[in-house]
Amino acid sequence: MRIALLQSVSSALNPDTNFDALMVAAERAAAAGAQVLITPELFATGYVPEQLGAWLAREKIAGFAERFAAIARASGIAIVGSYPAARAVTRSTTSAAGDDSETDYEIRAGLWDDAGKKLVEYAKVHLWSASEHAVFQPANALSEIVVLHGRRVALQICYDIEFAEPARALASRGAEILFVPTAIDAGGRYVAETIVPARAAENGIYVAYVNHASLTGDVSDFLGGSVAVGPEGVRLAQAAAAPEMLIVDVPESGRVADSADYLGDRRPEVYAAWEADSRAAQEGR
Amino acid sequence: MRIALLQSVSSALNPDTNFDALMVAAERAAAAGAQVLITPELFATGYVPEQLGAWLAREKIAGFAERFAAIARASGIAIVGSYPAARAVTRSTTSAAGDDSETDYEIRAGLWDDAGKKLVEYAKVHLWSASEHAVFQPANALSEIVVLHGRRVALQICYDIEFAEPARALASRGAEILFVPTAIDAGGRYVAETIVPARAAENGIYVAYVNHASLTGDVSDFLGGSVAVGPEGVRLAQAAAAPEMLIVDVPESGRVADSADYLGDRRPEVYAAWEADSRAAQEGR
Repeated sequence: MRIALLQSVSSALNPDTNFDALMVAAERAAAAGAQVLITPELFATGYVPEQLGAWLAREKIAGFAERFAAIARASGIAIVGSYPAARAVTRSTTSAAGDDSETDYEIRAGLWDDAGKKLVEYAKVHLWSASEHAVFQPANALSEIVVLHGRRVALQICYDIEFAEPARALASRGAEILFVPTAIDAGGRYVAETIVPARAAENGIYVAYVNHASLTGDVSDFLGGSVAVGPEGVRLAQAAAAPEMLIVDVPESGRVADSADYLGDRRPEVYAAWEADSRAAQEGR
Repeated sequence: MRIALLQSVSSALNPDTNFDALMVAAERAAAAGAQVLITPELFATGYVPEQLGAWLAREKIAGFAERFAAIARASGIAIVGSYPAARAVTRSTTSAAGDDSETDYEIRAGLWDDAGKKLVEYAKVHLWSASEHAVFQPANALSEIVVLHGRRVALQICYDIEFAEPARALASRGAEILFVPTAIDAGGRYVAETIVPARAAENGIYVAYVNHASLTGDVSDFLGGSVAVGPEGVRLAQAAAAPEMLIVDVPESGRVADSADYLGDRRPEVYAAWEADSRAAQEGR
């Protein structure tokens, strides 16, 4: 499978600009033979949680999913798009229906196929920092695993992959490739260079980790450093800081000859006992 | 805490030679101000599982623990020693007591303090390859966490650390530093360079990973590459392939300012639900 990692710069709170840029990128990726294009986290609005709190409203974001779908359809390439979304909430309230103060928002990523059909949608489970918690609610569900061009793929978002647990759960369920929109700055260099390759290595899977580009080179700006990695942590491609679209061929089989069978050699019954002990100890605190 | 990583060459099936070498190394490490010396996996006999099957007998290995203790006492430095050990087994059998065919062997590591007192002993949970499974039985228990010179330390052995679960369980229980005797060849370079640093990063802990040295430089020989790493995956020191004793100061606090709080931000109740789903699916297969 040929994949495209779109290390781009989103315009803050200008979805029209961002979707226009995505259309151009999708056509380029399709022309390069890529079968899926992956965007960074919150591509649609830019990763600006501090500004999103005041900006977000249901009507502003209601069309995002359909716009990703339309671009996938028009350019003939599957797309992993990330955007803020309103969560369907049923709650008892005395306030008027439709009041935005009653809306829970999530950081979401969706995968649409090249006909614009939504294959899977996922909402971030591990929120990063107070700025995200102030605006978004965390989700609790793993991504479903879906088949794209014959490969079993699933989604994570940014901080999720810094925890071993969800990638392990996805790999144990049969995921071969994780698509991971992200937004990290220079302080997160060890994530792109150490943790993400370890997730691929320890599960014998591929991971495409797609970050925003830096325009300024400041340490407070985004890192860039988008990376595609595979079994044994081998880097297939890694971007520098500037805007760039990486085109990467993901090999057919994730299994390296004579390599460790991590999923087969793990000891889930032993871990379950340890975890039960941990939780008992935690509850006893 | 100052620690010494003994990247050495053990003489196969010659424990006397190996303990003599350890005495010399322990005195050197103590003279360098180190408070603990860590040996590679199965230091006492050499890492030769193919030969150990025929060689092992209770009486040959019964004194190993006491020899590590005696060297710690004599040199005034704590020691992490690794060796094959007989497991206490209660089983109904019709054969004569003491029959070696009835003995279960484990790959073990122990930590003795500078007075020769055993602080903790641990047996490998994740056995590597058919050659280990042919000779040894896997254990099921995490290392206890013990205090050494004011730091909460615990043990793992080799393949154990390639799985995220046990390091996570130890860190969740408060371990600050893991001492990990290992035995890997050049095929395991990604373990020393990617997975071990990720374990430190993703748990905000320190890991000292101590391998056998290479004498030949062949890819089939040991890798060397012993490494001490900390939070954010920062390498404190890393050895090349040749025999070397690394002396490393482990900083007082593992917490990097403004760094991710991985243990605080994990979502154990969500993971427990996923794990229950996984096991249900596995049992249904």
